Amino acid sequence: MPPLKINHVAIVVEDVNAALSFWRDALGLPLHHLEHNESEAVDIAFLPVGEGEIELIAPFTEDSGVAKYLAKKGAGLHHICLEVENIEEAIARITAGGGEMINAEARTRSDGTRYAFVHPKSTGGVLLELYEVKP
Amino acid sequence: MPPLKINHVAIVVEDVNAALSFWRDALGLPLHHLEHNESEAVDIAFLPVGEGEIELIAPFTEDSGVAKYLAKKGAGLHHICLEVENIEEAIARITAGGGEMINAEARTRSDGTRYAFVHPKSTGGVLLELYEVKP
Repeated sequence: MPPLKINHVAIVVEDVNAALSFWRDALGLPLHHLEHNESEAVDIAFLPVGEGEIELIAPFTEDSGVAKYLAKKGAGLHHICLEVENIEEAIARITAGGGEMINAEARTRSDGTRYAFVHPKSTGGVLLELYEVKP
Repeated sequence: MPPLKINHVAIVVEDVNAALSFWRDALGLPLHHLEHNESEAVDIAFLPVGEGEIELIAPFTEDSGVAKYLAKKGAGLHHICLEVENIEEAIARITAGGGEMINAEARTRSDGTRYAFVHPKSTGGVLLELYEVKP
């Protein structure tokens, strides 16, 4: 079963409000909601487009993973997320094909979404997230 | 009128066939077609997913724009493309909002698709392409 769709494209920015002045105000995407995520120390803006979403992510501390990424690489595209029907099957296929997972087993977010990241060295340099979204 | 959908996510890779061993063979995306694009000196693999596409792009010369990007930044996410209903209206909104276009006027590909790139300094570091796709 191939992945179903692009769930989101995540962009790391210095400041969510500054980024919204482009993505919402000038480009015209609707802002669905803002999230202040304490566990990952980031603010996130969710902007739906078609069947997917653009996520603008800004760290609010200097020592989180995202903050270090921003300091090292600068603002820009961070990862993409594809939705799959069955995340165990997807992980098994990737591993059988010689791909390397960051999360060898799916993890679960507080909203019930199960996810796992594929290592960029297996994808051609792209941090790839897989989601299994429960209906 | 907000953008309609994510048309594609473009990934720059060293070698399209090597990248297909992950994106097609392990992840399971269908390969729609391969394009040998002489004008931009790149090979492109088009892999549909949902209403959008993943594009794997590899330069076949060393002096193209994409080749220089790859040499400088390494393989990874290159740009995203959002589909809009009216590209002149989108460019006008972005410009009125203080955004800077790489292409101040829409250009036209051989298949009739009209496109324009927004400068990364306006988007939070993301090279953003806009498409107006004729039905």
